[in-house]
Amino acid sequence: MYKLLSGLRIVEGAAFVAAPSCALHCAQMGAEVIRFDMIGGGPDYHRWPRSPNGPSFYWEGLNKGKKSIAIDLSRSEGRELAVSIATAPGEGAGLFVTNYPVSGFLSHENLAKHRSDIITVRIMGWADGSSAVDYTVNSAIGIPSMTGPESMGDVPVNHVLPAWDLATGTYAAFALLAAERNRRMTGKGEEVRVPLGDVAATSLGHLGQVAEVFVSGEDRPRMGNDLFGALGRDFRTRDNRRVMIVALTKRHWSDLVKALGLREEITAIEAELGVDLASDEGLRFEHRDRLNPLLIAAIEARTLAELERAFEGTGVCWGPYNTLKEAIAAGEPFGTDGRLFDMVEHPSRNRYPTPGAAATLPSQTRLPPVPSGGLGANTDEVLAVVLGLSAAEIGKLHDAGIVAGPAPAGA
Amino acid sequence: MYKLLSGLRIVEGAAFVAAPSCALHCAQMGAEVIRFDMIGGGPDYHRWPRSPNGPSFYWEGLNKGKKSIAIDLSRSEGRELAVSIATAPGEGAGLFVTNYPVSGFLSHENLAKHRSDIITVRIMGWADGSSAVDYTVNSAIGIPSMTGPESMGDVPVNHVLPAWDLATGTYAAFALLAAERNRRMTGKGEEVRVPLGDVAATSLGHLGQVAEVFVSGEDRPRMGNDLFGALGRDFRTRDNRRVMIVALTKRHWSDLVKALGLREEITAIEAELGVDLASDEGLRFEHRDRLNPLLIAAIEARTLAELERAFEGTGVCWGPYNTLKEAIAAGEPFGTDGRLFDMVEHPSRNRYPTPGAAATLPSQTRLPPVPSGGLGANTDEVLAVVLGLSAAEIGKLHDAGIVAGPAPAGA
Repeated sequence: MYKLLSGLRIVEGAAFVAAPSCALHCAQMGAEVIRFDMIGGGPDYHRWPRSPNGPSFYWEGLNKGKKSIAIDLSRSEGRELAVSIATAPGEGAGLFVTNYPVSGFLSHENLAKHRSDIITVRIMGWADGSSAVDYTVNSAIGIPSMTGPESMGDVPVNHVLPAWDLATGTYAAFALLAAERNRRMTGKGEEVRVPLGDVAATSLGHLGQVAEVFVSGEDRPRMGNDLFGALGRDFRTRDNRRVMIVALTKRHWSDLVKALGLREEITAIEAELGVDLASDEGLRFEHRDRLNPLLIAAIEARTLAELERAFEGTGVCWGPYNTLKEAIAAGEPFGTDGRLFDMVEHPSRNRYPTPGAAATLPSQTRLPPVPSGGLGANTDEVLAVVLGLSAAEIGKLHDAGIVAGPAPAGA
Repeated sequence: MYKLLSGLRIVEGAAFVAAPSCALHCAQMGAEVIRFDMIGGGPDYHRWPRSPNGPSFYWEGLNKGKKSIAIDLSRSEGRELAVSIATAPGEGAGLFVTNYPVSGFLSHENLAKHRSDIITVRIMGWADGSSAVDYTVNSAIGIPSMTGPESMGDVPVNHVLPAWDLATGTYAAFALLAAERNRRMTGKGEEVRVPLGDVAATSLGHLGQVAEVFVSGEDRPRMGNDLFGALGRDFRTRDNRRVMIVALTKRHWSDLVKALGLREEITAIEAELGVDLASDEGLRFEHRDRLNPLLIAAIEARTLAELERAFEGTGVCWGPYNTLKEAIAAGEPFGTDGRLFDMVEHPSRNRYPTPGAAATLPSQTRLPPVPSGGLGANTDEVLAVVLGLSAAEIGKLHDAGIVAGPAPAGA
């Protein structure tokens, strides 16, 4: 938690990963974030993984450091309240992050009627407004046909990381600050739409993969754990550990060959093929069927500890394969020393390693990550401070069932 | 291409995906971006995928709309020139994006000697400065042991998408604007370090996966194409097409059951198990071995066209599996109508679908994406405009081999 964004107030009306993580990144950089949810929780309130006693680790992970107000959004009075909170005055306010549909009560046009310089960052599935989630975007753009072992034939292999959700959340946080900067310069608000499908398609364009397929007329085939276009894959050590080794740069490659004592064999292959494998990583990819067996044998002859010694102080780019449990047990980057993670108690009553902002600012003190207070924990505070309602007015909203306070513990 | 970030000048001294994509996102939102490279190109200049005539699609994809200056960075005069460009005066300048090491001539301390309010956004591998790339970060934190078919046993399955590179690039663009906003408020510069390993570890924390493993003491097992915690997987149609179907929300599920005519069978299972499958997506995950066979049979009985008709106008969340070639041929989101992609000619002399910014601003006109001019295309312009050098001074730098102009076509 840093204070770079002090003075900004962001209102979130959203669910799942992309939009909530956009606002989370802002909260962990110092913005005030207010999330409104349906009384009883939105569609992500029980999303797995969950604590053994019920609450969602996913929900409390994505809503750290946010204020929560619970509103009955099925009633027009509740919807009006949500609009009032999103469009409340203040120079650093009027910033709204959502994954609600383009039209409806949270349309930019409707919000702009209440605050003309509102910035609406809208996460979408496809750009035409049709429904999509990370997994259906990923299948549609062809990643699962490139992922996994060659033996899978034409069976798709989904990757498990919600990569488009994550990239869309961070991109949306960038776009939000870009629009806020422009508003300070021009006074003008803006709707900024960030569809998952567009983040995915532009990413493949930026990486050159659209050009590759369009110009060659061919899809990139599935190639197991081999890295495309350079040397890289998994290897097994003598003590049955697995390591990932990558040789993208000249130094990666030269140091690897040297550390494994393979210079003679590689020189022989280079002479035979008439190529210089150090100067061009693409040649290491093209000839990987010659190179990988040498590397496999050299690594199978060593234990993980021997490899560590051989690679220490060199430019070899490598790392072990861990499970997440092994990675957490190993400490860095999951160590709870306050560098990135701290031990924090959450609404689920569990204490566990909890991350702050992914960025580190060496000149500033990193404050510990702030947990979520839980659903509805800040209902009265938000109504009083943001909307200026009196205790009596707030009481009326409770009595009418338009808002709700904190859910009972463990619910 | 939009103009939200007009007035910012970002200097990039970097290679590969994360740092260059950070500056690319800024360029496509209207910032001026100047990238310096070693004469002849940096370590990513020939990275695959490449055009059949040689140039890298990857390089030209990640450097769209940037000005390029080629400098001999192996000589101290060249390194001083790079520092001068990064630290040149101007209210919207003094923003530097790099993946160079923490210490050395591009250290924040050295840059701050030339411009005290410099903002340095430094992409790193691991936070301690040790080398890592997307693939070695991913193996270290446990994703490949969760990815892929259960039949793989303990063999890791790498996903092919450089997800941590992409998320780090977008997060770094966010962090850059956060630091720039803070500088405008306080006058203070900042080093902002964004290690790939920290983006990955915090992401798993935010998603609740660190809590899940820490509290349960168990790793999440590999589960093929099944979505964790709800119903979702691949299915094959009668005409041998594959589709991804996800039922996260109540509406996803209810509409799916209805569209496939499975209400009776599902009601019988609910009665037998004593559960309400619509109210809790976790139950659909727990009982997926009962539900998936019904869905498999229902979808195998229909062609893709029949499924499309059955799902049209419903809340079913689904999509086909395509290869990337099929996706590009299908048009949206890759269509070159200027909505997101345009046909653009690049330094490689190829014309292909080229993306602009992932965000869309309905109130503004989207300008076509600007290609890279190629390595060294702006050497003289940058020296003249940014450093104010005379034609004679620029000529001297060329004569001394400290800088170079455009590489010959096709090189």
